[in-house]
Amino acid sequence: MGNTFGHLFRITTWGESHGGGVGVVVDGCPPRLKLTEADIQPDLDRRRPGQSKIVTPRKESDTVQILSGTFEGQTLGTPISMWVKNEDQRSEAYNEMAVKFRPSHADYTYQAKFGIRAWPGGGRTSARETIGRVAAGAIAKKILRERFGVEVLAYVNQVQTICADIDPNNVKFAEVEANIVRCPDQTVAKKMIRLIEKMRGAGNTVGGIVTGVARGVPAGWGEPVFDRLEADLAKAMLSLPASKGFDIGSGFGGITMTGLEHNDAFRAKGGKVFTTTNRSGGIQGGISNGQTIYFRVPFKPVATVMHEQDTVNVDFKNTTLKGRGRHDPCVLPRAVPMVEAMTALVLVDHALRHQAQCG
Amino acid sequence: MGNTFGHLFRITTWGESHGGGVGVVVDGCPPRLKLTEADIQPDLDRRRPGQSKIVTPRKESDTVQILSGTFEGQTLGTPISMWVKNEDQRSEAYNEMAVKFRPSHADYTYQAKFGIRAWPGGGRTSARETIGRVAAGAIAKKILRERFGVEVLAYVNQVQTICADIDPNNVKFAEVEANIVRCPDQTVAKKMIRLIEKMRGAGNTVGGIVTGVARGVPAGWGEPVFDRLEADLAKAMLSLPASKGFDIGSGFGGITMTGLEHNDAFRAKGGKVFTTTNRSGGIQGGISNGQTIYFRVPFKPVATVMHEQDTVNVDFKNTTLKGRGRHDPCVLPRAVPMVEAMTALVLVDHALRHQAQCG
Amino acid sequence: MGNTFGHLFRITTWGESHGGGVGVVVDGCPPRLKLTEADIQPDLDRRRPGQSKIVTPRKESDTVQILSGTFEGQTLGTPISMWVKNEDQRSEAYNEMAVKFRPSHADYTYQAKFGIRAWPGGGRTSARETIGRVAAGAIAKKILRERFGVEVLAYVNQVQTICADIDPNNVKFAEVEANIVRCPDQTVAKKMIRLIEKMRGAGNTVGGIVTGVARGVPAGWGEPVFDRLEADLAKAMLSLPASKGFDIGSGFGGITMTGLEHNDAFRAKGGKVFTTTNRSGGIQGGISNGQTIYFRVPFKPVATVMHEQDTVNVDFKNTTLKGRGRHDPCVLPRAVPMVEAMTALVLVDHALRHQAQCG
Amino acid sequence: MGNTFGHLFRITTWGESHGGGVGVVVDGCPPRLKLTEADIQPDLDRRRPGQSKIVTPRKESDTVQILSGTFEGQTLGTPISMWVKNEDQRSEAYNEMAVKFRPSHADYTYQAKFGIRAWPGGGRTSARETIGRVAAGAIAKKILRERFGVEVLAYVNQVQTICADIDPNNVKFAEVEANIVRCPDQTVAKKMIRLIEKMRGAGNTVGGIVTGVARGVPAGWGEPVFDRLEADLAKAMLSLPASKGFDIGSGFGGITMTGLEHNDAFRAKGGKVFTTTNRSGGIQGGISNGQTIYFRVPFKPVATVMHEQDTVNVDFKNTTLKGRGRHDPCVLPRAVPMVEAMTALVLVDHALRHQAQCG
Repeated sequence: MGNTFGHLFRITTWGESHGGGVGVVVDGCPPRLKLTEADIQPDLDRRRPGQSKIVTPRKESDTVQILSGTFEGQTLGTPISMWVKNEDQRSEAYNEMAVKFRPSHADYTYQAKFGIRAWPGGGRTSARETIGRVAAGAIAKKILRERFGVEVLAYVNQVQTICADIDPNNVKFAEVEANIVRCPDQTVAKKMIRLIEKMRGAGNTVGGIVTGVARGVPAGWGEPVFDRLEADLAKAMLSLPASKGFDIGSGFGGITMTGLEHNDAFRAKGGKVFTTTNRSGGIQGGISNGQTIYFRVPFKPVATVMHEQDTVNVDFKNTTLKGRGRHDPCVLPRAVPMVEAMTALVLVDHALRHQAQCG
Repeated sequence: MGNTFGHLFRITTWGESHGGGVGVVVDGCPPRLKLTEADIQPDLDRRRPGQSKIVTPRKESDTVQILSGTFEGQTLGTPISMWVKNEDQRSEAYNEMAVKFRPSHADYTYQAKFGIRAWPGGGRTSARETIGRVAAGAIAKKILRERFGVEVLAYVNQVQTICADIDPNNVKFAEVEANIVRCPDQTVAKKMIRLIEKMRGAGNTVGGIVTGVARGVPAGWGEPVFDRLEADLAKAMLSLPASKGFDIGSGFGGITMTGLEHNDAFRAKGGKVFTTTNRSGGIQGGISNGQTIYFRVPFKPVATVMHEQDTVNVDFKNTTLKGRGRHDPCVLPRAVPMVEAMTALVLVDHALRHQAQCG
Repeated sequence: MGNTFGHLFRITTWGESHGGGVGVVVDGCPPRLKLTEADIQPDLDRRRPGQSKIVTPRKESDTVQILSGTFEGQTLGTPISMWVKNEDQRSEAYNEMAVKFRPSHADYTYQAKFGIRAWPGGGRTSARETIGRVAAGAIAKKILRERFGVEVLAYVNQVQTICADIDPNNVKFAEVEANIVRCPDQTVAKKMIRLIEKMRGAGNTVGGIVTGVARGVPAGWGEPVFDRLEADLAKAMLSLPASKGFDIGSGFGGITMTGLEHNDAFRAKGGKVFTTTNRSGGIQGGISNGQTIYFRVPFKPVATVMHEQDTVNVDFKNTTLKGRGRHDPCVLPRAVPMVEAMTALVLVDHALRHQAQCG
Repeated sequence: MGNTFGHLFRITTWGESHGGGVGVVVDGCPPRLKLTEADIQPDLDRRRPGQSKIVTPRKESDTVQILSGTFEGQTLGTPISMWVKNEDQRSEAYNEMAVKFRPSHADYTYQAKFGIRAWPGGGRTSARETIGRVAAGAIAKKILRERFGVEVLAYVNQVQTICADIDPNNVKFAEVEANIVRCPDQTVAKKMIRLIEKMRGAGNTVGGIVTGVARGVPAGWGEPVFDRLEADLAKAMLSLPASKGFDIGSGFGGITMTGLEHNDAFRAKGGKVFTTTNRSGGIQGGISNGQTIYFRVPFKPVATVMHEQDTVNVDFKNTTLKGRGRHDPCVLPRAVPMVEAMTALVLVDHALRHQAQCG
């Protein structure tokens, strides 16, 4: 269970690292949206391994195929099934993983839950699972852009202690994509890249923060009390592998202010309402207020390191394990399209829910 | 929409601040659980206004009544309907709210979404809505305790910059309840109380952090990939009024470490597996690993301050508004039972889901 | 579980025959709909016992109270909680039911499932449970009428072998309500009433068929492949107590025709498409086609008869049981508003779902 | 929307008649179930066209491939993705369908709903869509058989007016499969086959009734009040293409009896409870009572006939259409595995739901 996300724009992902492939079924997509693989592939290319020297080197083209739900280049309103075949399957490289639990990975918990696990490549816990999300997210972004005028983007804001100061109201997609670490401040980006390269050289890994942004969301999206917009965003972000948290607007930082300092004053101009500050992060009481939505997602350092570490084996005996094979020093550059995808999926779902009840 | 939470242990809350009352329907509760109002009321008393000098002074007894789902003191397996009548309804005190949007409140967004809002007392956006959650959460905590040996608790960890250093493995409920701010460090608690009193005196407000803890959760709860245990906890916490974030285990702090430093080594002893550190926060890959689950939730300073602030009225004209009447200087002491309730609701739901598929 | 119905217009019912009351929470109702108890009570009056000499004589006013979700006579878009207090609770009259299972009732199956049951009045299995549905259905009918121009009605078509020949395209609500059995053919109605009175005199019971009708549904409602409009109607009808089936359009009768005879020819006139016959019952491929929707629901004879019958007791020993107290000779007149309610709930839900994806 | 079925054992089907293929994702399958394609293919072979002279002649091997969710021949507890490639795509044969709506088909309603439709082969409305259901149903049947001792089967009970008298308690799978029409009475089967051949010769079609049976279901499955076992079965059956109804136990026939005649007396023997008759059809109050579950599903005659019929074109002009190409004189033999599949899907889902709340 748990492999479906969304109420009205609903995705179901499937696939293990070393099975027939990975994929997604999207149900609830509005009909008559122009859609071909060319709309999906660019985001998969931003997600795939081997795209630069600072990410994991797995060799996969990650070529997406749309199997259903479109006709003559348009969506039908029926389920859109997309899949990517698995290519680079080197299960021999992972033999030790069959009998030992990798520290801070999900090997042990999957075994404890299911009494079985697909150990080659980490099975379902592999980041390959996010291919389905990113493919579905590309559709969601297209709908948001074309039908609602909403722009979703994300960027690396911090790597370990190297932090950029970015204005979510003005950051541009081209700035994000201008470097391999996906930090829109080109100077800071260089420092980040150097740090990640250093980590890779040391067989070590590093984490950081991705910021997600949605601009142009009209006031009114979000379903209190449980399906608040920020609650669904939080769930979406915490469902990403390696993410450890979420905060929106002033977030954890806002607690140092008093209420008087923290409140966002409303002002009106030309019949439109706005706030003079945006500590709310574009959402108040679970509903968008028309301001820019922005939030932060911390990702822990990748668990696989090229050093010997204490662990236990499947017989619950103490042993050690040293990471071998592919080394992913930092998940952040590839997490950017994942954060975008999950953000877009939440927003489209809420757009349709709002349209259903209040449209 | 959006007023139902959970898949198998499913709650639906209803009610506005100034209507007939507030309540909840709990569906999916296991049968033959001993249950009377006496199991519910204590948590409502910990949630209610007027319980101490540092919280909002609204005068309500918040007496719960079970209307269905039990027979001769035991649950039937049918829906449990609980409600609390509204008593202290002073709508005259709020007249200004009828025509002005309170800054950083949800008045504006509700109006934008629905084209109507119940302005007296904030309507559905009032913290009174959480009565239903806390009542349902009391049942969830009882199930966890009696049927699964799981203990859930929460405490105030930080008020503005005053921070306590608490060990989630050992903190005791009695320590939390030993003072009115619900910080288990009695010395720090005193400082927190003084700060809140000072804020109240100044007509101002202050925020902080509540930590949630679950001990005794067996390895195996959680449903990847979307309904990861931490994802559902994040959603649960962000659905609470005034919360602005969530992080689990090392959370935002973990990003300063390298992978080598951050990983939790597995060890085995007497046929049981444990980790020597717990930066994962008791969850790996979305599934509990048997260690203590702990996470942080920042709450912003309460938006209603006793000072004049810029805002707009319902005709979208600029104006000012000054908070009057009840003044709640800090939501944190009352947020503690809310965090407990939502934590317990997530855990019971996942316990039943695990039992369904893998039991 | 299982006490919630609908996806977007979602109701949750609660309550036992002899508890604090019965009620419903409606989530997803569009905002700014005029709504007071006066919109709900008439349907509850059509459902309640004691309304005529041919139904069960339980004495209840079944007065509904709206506890939330409206403000100044309009819906807020927030959950609408409605309840009816239980009044006529004569648990002493049911003592034998505490230790014996009534034949063809749900006493045994509830005990087998939950290991406990609220035996007074049948607990949750009492037809009182349908109060919540009928109350919610009254709102659904109002939305359909006012916002979509759709009329929903139902009538008794057959009592045992006494059958009326009614045209679903033209039958009028006033004709249905013109007699106590709710058959729009006044001559046939008299025969039906005589039969039911005879059954009551004999301490026996009788079943029959209710036909449900929806007129004015536009082409396009329904969500293939699983949530076909007729599939959701079938589920809705089979969820009613004592119902044993469902068929739509030509239904069971259609199988005697060949395809050539059975097909509904399309014709166009003035830019509008219609069918010259309507064996499809207004739905094709799970989606409404703009013609009148009509379907039949058979209700078995009421299980409680005033005669001694074989059964077993709670210790699984053979014994006998004779119905005592209230005697309901025929459920059909009261089933009519229930069928209307469930029909309207399905249609509103699908109207909103259609609006979400294709609106 | 609407392409997902089930709560805990949840399937999502996808695919059009003439796209890349058709498939299904199964989420919630218990782990460590032995599963390979060999468990699925036999039911697909019973469903596929071309299996005998009395069904549609489309040439497809319908070879299933499991893409995920298993490892070394066992289920992982993760989503099981299965697909069947489309082979026999003769879109040229359907050119007339591009501009005309086939009578009593879903061409018009899909166009009305979505504003677009995949006309080749009927797109999503093709019976090919049921491949995903039958594949998932094969898994469900295996779980029921191996883990719960429940046997599910179905058979053709009636073709037009030719009716067999079958005892659902004793009918055997081998008897059903002993002839091409799947009626377990071999003498009646011959008559049915002759009728269908006659219809084929005449370019006409015929409908009938399939009976579904589940034996060995323990008392206690089913979730009142909305998710009653018979309600979910009814929805499942009405979601099948060409089905027009459902009744359970005495069904429509039961209304000719009085309550005294209709009631199923309980008896006990050796500490076990049973009923002396089974007019309830194995379900009382929405919950299984341990007796055989049996129900009937009428299927209308196939809409495509080889005769000219009145219809309208996509410009809403009157025209005629004559069926060409493949001619399916009777859907019943192929509907048998579909009814089995949907029955099994409902039962497994309820088995898991019961285990969750009451296990």
